[in-house]
Amino acid sequence: MTTGHVFIATSLDGFVARQDHSLDWLLKQPDAEDDDGGFAAFMDSVDGLVMGSGSFRTVLGFGQWAYTKPVIVLSSSLTGQDIPEELKDKVRLSSAAPADLMQELQEEGWTRAYVDGGRMVQSFLRQGLIADLTITTVPILIGSGIPLFGSLDRDIDLQVDSSRILPTGMIQTTFRVA
Amino acid sequence: MTTGHVFIATSLDGFVARQDHSLDWLLKQPDAEDDDGGFAAFMDSVDGLVMGSGSFRTVLGFGQWAYTKPVIVLSSSLTGQDIPEELKDKVRLSSAAPADLMQELQEEGWTRAYVDGGRMVQSFLRQGLIADLTITTVPILIGSGIPLFGSLDRDIDLQVDSSRILPTGMIQTTFRVA
Repeated sequence: MTTGHVFIATSLDGFVARQDHSLDWLLKQPDAEDDDGGFAAFMDSVDGLVMGSGSFRTVLGFGQWAYTKPVIVLSSSLTGQDIPEELKDKVRLSSAAPADLMQELQEEGWTRAYVDGGRMVQSFLRQGLIADLTITTVPILIGSGIPLFGSLDRDIDLQVDSSRILPTGMIQTTFRVA
Repeated sequence: MTTGHVFIATSLDGFVARQDHSLDWLLKQPDAEDDDGGFAAFMDSVDGLVMGSGSFRTVLGFGQWAYTKPVIVLSSSLTGQDIPEELKDKVRLSSAAPADLMQELQEEGWTRAYVDGGRMVQSFLRQGLIADLTITTVPILIGSGIPLFGSLDRDIDLQVDSSRILPTGMIQTTFRVA
């Protein structure tokens, strides 16, 4: 089956965005022009993205479409009308269950899917659909927001593959689901 | 004033203990006999510890008193009767506000206090009484428990001082409050 892979930034207290989806705390961090934290290489390694409606709205808000790979928006509330005309060939809506979606994507030839956004990551993790997570920890506490992780039925053991301090002063660690 | 210093392990999802204070998820991790993760050196660097009643009860539950340095238990609910006789010269109860306690400790000659336990860390952080945090991230998701961090009135910016993978496969990072 297609495997899920996470590449995400969180505050030190574990939030991927403020409650209103704002990323000001992340965007104010210093840039490192010559080091993208491995993002381009990660993007090259996936066949496409899976995100929820919250992340999709945030990305739409950037004004400029950031992805060259196909994007699946997993949502039971959005309809085709919520996808702007110019994105119809780049974005596909699905209301499938996560495991069914990964089966479908497998049949379409996807090997690796980038699973993005707090709610999606939680849901795919709970169902054992995530193979690894690259988490970039931003050295800031924001106190509240949308958490990367959520409740679980059972513990999930991971293994650290690699960890480094980025030139921006963030910590980037790759965890493999054990 | 005496500065607060944190040295604590958390699950990747940010919990210092399960809801019932259990540390089974931490205690099951591999030992590294020749590397204590810098704990002894950290203990040498502090004049004593400040912890809440929850951490105190957990430590009492270990059966064996672990600390050679004086311990202040900050609690408005515990009384002298909650301190076992054999610890009366090692443990002191206080119901002071955190800043007042740090002022008192300063007058007693403390330079550095080890602030331990999720609730204490949150309360001392909110009041600007923490200078740095060494956080050892255990590669496990436990889903729920006592969080290291809590709500804040405002963001707290930190800086990464150092980060390494311990021989046990945990990530240890020291953050300085900016």
